[in-house]
Amino acid sequence: MSIPTDVLTQLEHQSIELPSWAFGNSGTRFKVFETPGTPRTIEEKIADAARVNTLTGLAPAVALHIPWDKVGDYAALAGYAEGLGVKLGTVNSNTFQDDDYKLGSLTHSDPAIRSKAIDHMYECIEVMNQTGSQDLKIWLADGTNYPGQGNLRARQDRLANSLAKVYDRLGDEQRMVLEYKFFEPAFYHTDVPDWGTSYVHCAALGEKALVCLDTGHHAPGTNIEFIVAQLLRLGKLGSFDFNSRFYADDDLIVGAADPFQLFRIMHEVVRGGGLDPANKVAFMLDQCHNVEGKIPGQIRSVLNVQEMTARALLVDSAALEAAQNAGDVLAANAVLMDAFYTDVRSDLAAWRESRSLPADPMAAFASSGYQEKINADRQGGQQAGWGA
Amino acid sequence: MSIPTDVLTQLEHQSIELPSWAFGNSGTRFKVFETPGTPRTIEEKIADAARVNTLTGLAPAVALHIPWDKVGDYAALAGYAEGLGVKLGTVNSNTFQDDDYKLGSLTHSDPAIRSKAIDHMYECIEVMNQTGSQDLKIWLADGTNYPGQGNLRARQDRLANSLAKVYDRLGDEQRMVLEYKFFEPAFYHTDVPDWGTSYVHCAALGEKALVCLDTGHHAPGTNIEFIVAQLLRLGKLGSFDFNSRFYADDDLIVGAADPFQLFRIMHEVVRGGGLDPANKVAFMLDQCHNVEGKIPGQIRSVLNVQEMTARALLVDSAALEAAQNAGDVLAANAVLMDAFYTDVRSDLAAWRESRSLPADPMAAFASSGYQEKINADRQGGQQAGWGA
Amino acid sequence: MSIPTDVLTQLEHQSIELPSWAFGNSGTRFKVFETPGTPRTIEEKIADAARVNTLTGLAPAVALHIPWDKVGDYAALAGYAEGLGVKLGTVNSNTFQDDDYKLGSLTHSDPAIRSKAIDHMYECIEVMNQTGSQDLKIWLADGTNYPGQGNLRARQDRLANSLAKVYDRLGDEQRMVLEYKFFEPAFYHTDVPDWGTSYVHCAALGEKALVCLDTGHHAPGTNIEFIVAQLLRLGKLGSFDFNSRFYADDDLIVGAADPFQLFRIMHEVVRGGGLDPANKVAFMLDQCHNVEGKIPGQIRSVLNVQEMTARALLVDSAALEAAQNAGDVLAANAVLMDAFYTDVRSDLAAWRESRSLPADPMAAFASSGYQEKINADRQGGQQAGWGA
Amino acid sequence: MSIPTDVLTQLEHQSIELPSWAFGNSGTRFKVFETPGTPRTIEEKIADAARVNTLTGLAPAVALHIPWDKVGDYAALAGYAEGLGVKLGTVNSNTFQDDDYKLGSLTHSDPAIRSKAIDHMYECIEVMNQTGSQDLKIWLADGTNYPGQGNLRARQDRLANSLAKVYDRLGDEQRMVLEYKFFEPAFYHTDVPDWGTSYVHCAALGEKALVCLDTGHHAPGTNIEFIVAQLLRLGKLGSFDFNSRFYADDDLIVGAADPFQLFRIMHEVVRGGGLDPANKVAFMLDQCHNVEGKIPGQIRSVLNVQEMTARALLVDSAALEAAQNAGDVLAANAVLMDAFYTDVRSDLAAWRESRSLPADPMAAFASSGYQEKINADRQGGQQAGWGA
Repeated sequence: MSIPTDVLTQLEHQSIELPSWAFGNSGTRFKVFETPGTPRTIEEKIADAARVNTLTGLAPAVALHIPWDKVGDYAALAGYAEGLGVKLGTVNSNTFQDDDYKLGSLTHSDPAIRSKAIDHMYECIEVMNQTGSQDLKIWLADGTNYPGQGNLRARQDRLANSLAKVYDRLGDEQRMVLEYKFFEPAFYHTDVPDWGTSYVHCAALGEKALVCLDTGHHAPGTNIEFIVAQLLRLGKLGSFDFNSRFYADDDLIVGAADPFQLFRIMHEVVRGGGLDPANKVAFMLDQCHNVEGKIPGQIRSVLNVQEMTARALLVDSAALEAAQNAGDVLAANAVLMDAFYTDVRSDLAAWRESRSLPADPMAAFASSGYQEKINADRQGGQQAGWGA
Repeated sequence: MSIPTDVLTQLEHQSIELPSWAFGNSGTRFKVFETPGTPRTIEEKIADAARVNTLTGLAPAVALHIPWDKVGDYAALAGYAEGLGVKLGTVNSNTFQDDDYKLGSLTHSDPAIRSKAIDHMYECIEVMNQTGSQDLKIWLADGTNYPGQGNLRARQDRLANSLAKVYDRLGDEQRMVLEYKFFEPAFYHTDVPDWGTSYVHCAALGEKALVCLDTGHHAPGTNIEFIVAQLLRLGKLGSFDFNSRFYADDDLIVGAADPFQLFRIMHEVVRGGGLDPANKVAFMLDQCHNVEGKIPGQIRSVLNVQEMTARALLVDSAALEAAQNAGDVLAANAVLMDAFYTDVRSDLAAWRESRSLPADPMAAFASSGYQEKINADRQGGQQAGWGA
Repeated sequence: MSIPTDVLTQLEHQSIELPSWAFGNSGTRFKVFETPGTPRTIEEKIADAARVNTLTGLAPAVALHIPWDKVGDYAALAGYAEGLGVKLGTVNSNTFQDDDYKLGSLTHSDPAIRSKAIDHMYECIEVMNQTGSQDLKIWLADGTNYPGQGNLRARQDRLANSLAKVYDRLGDEQRMVLEYKFFEPAFYHTDVPDWGTSYVHCAALGEKALVCLDTGHHAPGTNIEFIVAQLLRLGKLGSFDFNSRFYADDDLIVGAADPFQLFRIMHEVVRGGGLDPANKVAFMLDQCHNVEGKIPGQIRSVLNVQEMTARALLVDSAALEAAQNAGDVLAANAVLMDAFYTDVRSDLAAWRESRSLPADPMAAFASSGYQEKINADRQGGQQAGWGA
Repeated sequence: MSIPTDVLTQLEHQSIELPSWAFGNSGTRFKVFETPGTPRTIEEKIADAARVNTLTGLAPAVALHIPWDKVGDYAALAGYAEGLGVKLGTVNSNTFQDDDYKLGSLTHSDPAIRSKAIDHMYECIEVMNQTGSQDLKIWLADGTNYPGQGNLRARQDRLANSLAKVYDRLGDEQRMVLEYKFFEPAFYHTDVPDWGTSYVHCAALGEKALVCLDTGHHAPGTNIEFIVAQLLRLGKLGSFDFNSRFYADDDLIVGAADPFQLFRIMHEVVRGGGLDPANKVAFMLDQCHNVEGKIPGQIRSVLNVQEMTARALLVDSAALEAAQNAGDVLAANAVLMDAFYTDVRSDLAAWRESRSLPADPMAAFASSGYQEKINADRQGGQQAGWGA
């Protein structure tokens, strides 16, 4: 057994939130392919997410996206989820699909449109009140495509004002997490392009405002683990949106494109106390399964996070610190690499079994007949998607 | 007058092909906004394109996209276009929206799907036979999202075989232009990612196969004018897809993001003989007008190309060569910059007027009432788009 | 005359600081080429810089780099400069060339090395006391080449502590400007990689600590003008290091690689009040003339900044704001482009003459015989360079 | 034992060439740090390289760099190397450090300088004649820093002519490998920027000209394994320069920055027959050990290549092909990941011992006293470096 008991103990508490939209169809501007068994309703999405949790023990919460997951009775929805062993998590706002938001939402030059966007945030907070969700996630598509199209400075000022209005509505136990994104769908500038911008707004708002770090939202070459370390140091890391990328915001399965990067990120999470529940860092997925199976895609994802967390916990921090302080570059690097190259998979499988979970959740899903059943059952209706 | 007569003479022959799809709606995976007056049919797209030509004298051809622009009678369509003063140009194939192409088309591991894609290319050649178009443009969305998903090498071999079958069907005056693209919609690898790959396939096929260079399809930092110079040197530059980008394949208005880059590209075009009609380099736009007006967006685009071509033609090539050979770095650079910084706009306006064109095509369009008319006329029906 | 008087009035106050090291030899890790006439001493560097000022009226200050420009008597040096019509400007610290700094300086795990680096900063402040310089510029080469080599978090904490000690030593009229850099010479992480990191340290230190923005120190695709706007909004833009780049920190002549980007940056400077002397934004060059003439390279650079500032001042801000508020994307963009494409060069030449400056400073330098004279005079000794 | 016998058999033949310059000092334009024990002569470099081979059994050849490794009697040098159990490998030409090459070498506009550069290549071929080396490696620093500085097209034509003259001088068993590089030391364009350019020149020259792929010489995001597959398909992959990078041409230890990328590259090498000695692909390192120990840095590097080759050989190709043909994206990816995540280290250690090599070459070197001995012995003289 290469994984010590104390590592397994820490893994017991790991919890990864699944995005409801990962179970719907997604794609690119060129094509969204439909797939058999795709949920038509939020209830079906939750059922699929719950299945991921049943098989892995890792995913006890489902993030909602409003209005995609709008229902009449959120308390009932929360009850339905609870019945399946999961709870409702982060509420994701959407101010990018209404025609009014073509040129901006919280930053729009027209006060009426800003008000509309703020009202949508209030609506999301109301959903949170009913579901008991902790976090309102704000990702803004706001930005411009052409130099001169907007006043960069004025848009920042309007953003600050709009966010303040939303912040003031938060309950005592509620938080706002502000996501940044380098580009897309805006192609000249985005109004929250980097962690620095998200940070300065959150710092101005107060302690209930925190930064959301999506691992796919950075410029090429950005050292993401540095940002993780910095935000933990500043006490402002609210949540992760996990996925992976080769080029842009590819939204591939977390750990698929650069597993070593995921390892380095988890190493900083561990070092900075990000696994400590007291620090309330939320770990979420935000992915698109355009060509692969959605439920197995989510299973693969949470397993990737768990495996990499295990490797990060295996780092011999005393040896690492000693090598760092001795200025022994190769030895310090070797301590990290030794943990990264350790094959934790069979140990985790055995531990999983000891907890009455399938040793191989991927195989267990494949042989469960669940996919065949939903393929047969979910006929008719409108398959869920992004509604683009 | 800062523009000499011989430059104006060369500009007289400039011709830029407009993409029919630029007049339809486009957007991102997050949202495609609808706009008043958007064409419902290829005839309406051609009418809009013809208007761009009427106002600028620069855009006498319209590229088709099959199946988006499919009609029963292409000869009739060509006649319709001719009646509006334009002709039908490049035929763009589409092997990325049928469900069968989810994992590839010309490169697919299933011979039946490869055959289907080849048949689509044959269909496009048949359209060309009827429209008199010169070029079949092949842009492939083929690629993979995850390492291991496909066999990179086998896919190249299948691509070569498929292209050979298409090539053999070309008429004596017909050409195939093979477009390359760095990424999107595939996120791990694309089967024709760079000019080198397009070139080796075209070289293997024969002289009727040429490279299509889309200015937005390169890795960050790529020196595009070098590729232009190289392909002209190799006799393999078939056509341009003009647009501009800050990040990825943003498809912004040509010259909008980096006007100096467009200037350098046109400088290599001029130097390499690319403006000489005998060399048959096709100049096309391939853009998306997600947030700006589509017809004025196209007018702005062709004017940008014309203005930058004028600047490139102003380069004092004797002085440039002398400075280059003297090793005078700053003087050589200054020759280029002097042309770039020359304001050609008023001269071009005057020249335009002398040719019975509006001095200011943007203003002429705005005051023409055309947009208001199509807004009013084009009610009902399905606005054209990418059909994603 | 296309440049209005009020624009010329604003240009009168423009002042660009020249880096002493631009007059010495520079190169890459592959080769530093020597050139005739290169200064051997700081006095000769100042003489060259003063010549740039004489010919352009734009460069009344010279930045020092310690220890490259170390002298026994800084008051005498200031007097010498004054005699040539220039003053001594920013003092640049150097904690990257002593063997002790191989693994870090202000962030080093060894307190003795941190102390040594802090003492060097104190030494620089002492130089400032004697020269009357306003700014201590801190650029850190600190970083690591391999994951695990250093403790990212601990290094931040040590950086904060070290900076605080330096800050406390600043006089009432003195400032610290903290430069950030994406990568190089460190290749895995740098300790101040982005504006956000520089900002959080400056914010913690106090109002005499400000961010230094080097235009070549960003990830590919970064929207630099957004950062300019944001830092002006936050009151934390201390200074610019101007240069340009195609790939990495190429340190090419400002405006040479992407003139439109320089325009957009100057547009935000103008909009954000950065030209107002009361806001004390320092404009410096930081460039390498590896293959071109050094003095004409500096002349070309300051002229580029002046010309682009003139274009930025020509932006019709009322029309721009109207188009922005109307949501007219193309019109708003056109307002910017109209200013950018205006050829200001002949107007500036005429204005220069009216101020008893040469109409064409490049030609004036070439015909002045200055280069020939220094080539002949500066024989023997050690040509100045980076001392790498 | 997780590594099957046939994999170990294939590993037996693996051979990685070490660059002589890796044992000398290297650094950045900011600083080259000296280190105790650094070789002063090519004989000392070879001794260090031989030690890497003794400890790993992986590095039986040493690449030379002319003129850095110039000696009077190459036959004697080859004999010296043989006595230490290694042979002399690739000869690397250098046309970037003589003052004449400031603006180019094989591409220079001055025929006298081109002749000088060609003569240098002839000199290198003469060295090969004496050492029995197979490959002449040509990496060109040729390029420009400013648009207009050079004629991109004319430089290509001159390059072709110069290369032809060099090619004609090659013996029957000799090859030319032409390296490409995205940027640095030139910052606007390089004359051989990408694999396509290297390929078209090699294809024009003939079968003794092949492409050299340096893993650090690509644009951000480039899919390198695709290029490997393509060049193997075209029969034009001559050699690798292994190293790794986070940003630019960082020249870090191979596998250090992105181990999964190295795995994917080795997967394509295996699939394309690149391990078959009959295909004569040369595997070389080209790295800089700026902050870490040089000999252990080289040991770590060859072990990284061996370990990753082992993982690539573990890929279950039948299962992979089946999953690919079935269109099972996740299963196909899982086949690759299963091999990547297999911990091969203890098996390789045991196998190493069975071949009378140290189980842990890094530890064996550390405890051997070799470093302490050379630190003591190599006093005085000039430490080897790049001579920049």
